[in-house]
Amino acid sequence: MSERPEMVVLDVNETLSDTSALAGRFEEVGAPGHLAATWFAAVLRDGFALTATGGSAPFATVAAALLDDLLAPVRLTRPVEEAKAFLVEGFAGLPLHPDVAPGLTDLAAAGVRLVTLTNGAVATTTALLAPAGVDGLFEHHLSVADAPTWKPGAGSYRWAAERCGVAAADLMLVAVHPWDVHGARGAGLRTCWVDRDARTYPSYFTPPGLRVSSLTDLARRLAAG
Amino acid sequence: MSERPEMVVLDVNETLSDTSALAGRFEEVGAPGHLAATWFAAVLRDGFALTATGGSAPFATVAAALLDDLLAPVRLTRPVEEAKAFLVEGFAGLPLHPDVAPGLTDLAAAGVRLVTLTNGAVATTTALLAPAGVDGLFEHHLSVADAPTWKPGAGSYRWAAERCGVAAADLMLVAVHPWDVHGARGAGLRTCWVDRDARTYPSYFTPPGLRVSSLTDLARRLAAG
Repeated sequence: MSERPEMVVLDVNETLSDTSALAGRFEEVGAPGHLAATWFAAVLRDGFALTATGGSAPFATVAAALLDDLLAPVRLTRPVEEAKAFLVEGFAGLPLHPDVAPGLTDLAAAGVRLVTLTNGAVATTTALLAPAGVDGLFEHHLSVADAPTWKPGAGSYRWAAERCGVAAADLMLVAVHPWDVHGARGAGLRTCWVDRDARTYPSYFTPPGLRVSSLTDLARRLAAG
Repeated sequence: MSERPEMVVLDVNETLSDTSALAGRFEEVGAPGHLAATWFAAVLRDGFALTATGGSAPFATVAAALLDDLLAPVRLTRPVEEAKAFLVEGFAGLPLHPDVAPGLTDLAAAGVRLVTLTNGAVATTTALLAPAGVDGLFEHHLSVADAPTWKPGAGSYRWAAERCGVAAADLMLVAVHPWDVHGARGAGLRTCWVDRDARTYPSYFTPPGLRVSSLTDLARRLAAG
């Protein structure tokens, strides 16, 4: 059940980074912090609508466009285009969850090859990992910007497996998002759901092969497996 | 440009109903009203993730499941399952936007055949329309629960056209959601974006054939066209 995969492909936003810190950026521009959660859900909503209709757009383009309406009723403390840029850049300025750096180090020490796959930009991934000194643990950073589709479209995971030269069945997708676990399983990958807060896994998505409470927990499980 | 279509297919949630009233239900169960916007965006996010991977689930199932995590940190004024049911039922208890009843009446008077197509349930549609006395203006109420896919998957609109015995090109999708306009256009329908609040149409979605400020505006434009 926890047999070691050849390679682990990690999601980035919210799986590695703590997106709850985005709320502070909204407050900095004069907006309610709770808009951050609505914004992130809406960016994925529109990105997935494109995915479901065979289209695509850069994450930052979707994120910026949705701020126009979200910020419209807000009395901002700076010009709107400046506020939008500050918020979109926020994804690259988030802290990592406390278990991420030690967990990645343990995974690498256990001989697991590491790669990321994000619906965002590779530049965001490196900006998040470099300050923690763990960027060098990865073989590749991949973005759906170069893939045929966003996650959870099957083409994104298959493209990642191909880019890594690994069979889908030897690749384990690790993510906090049930939709990501669901999509990866549909594409033939092994899957692990990171559940840091004892959440409920939705019944309408394919369940994960493995469920862990942190990346250090994952490293322990794979080393023991 | 505003040539009259043979039939108009209306989206339901937020296009006919005023979903901003959902906030009051959250407050009634002891939760912050702003959770309503995050919830609705997340329901569509997960529904579209299923659509993008060839799956489907009832709207109410997705809506109820997502409340588990959203309500977890809240000190509710009633048992959680009761609160969840009250919130999910909220979609059927919303007021219509003020332009809806007169707009539908005008459209029907202009000889336009009317139908609805929702990602929710038909029971929700009739519960919303009946109190305003406009339910009888419609030939059918359709739900993606009976279709091969949720909107914005092309199969949902094509299924609706077939069910109505109308060519896709003679059918006009009317919705407030850009993702709905985008999906309908991709399936060959004519499209109309209802923009009640001078919002910004995202550049990454196919633009609407027609843009109106209300359903009464739509009726005027089609009668003049």
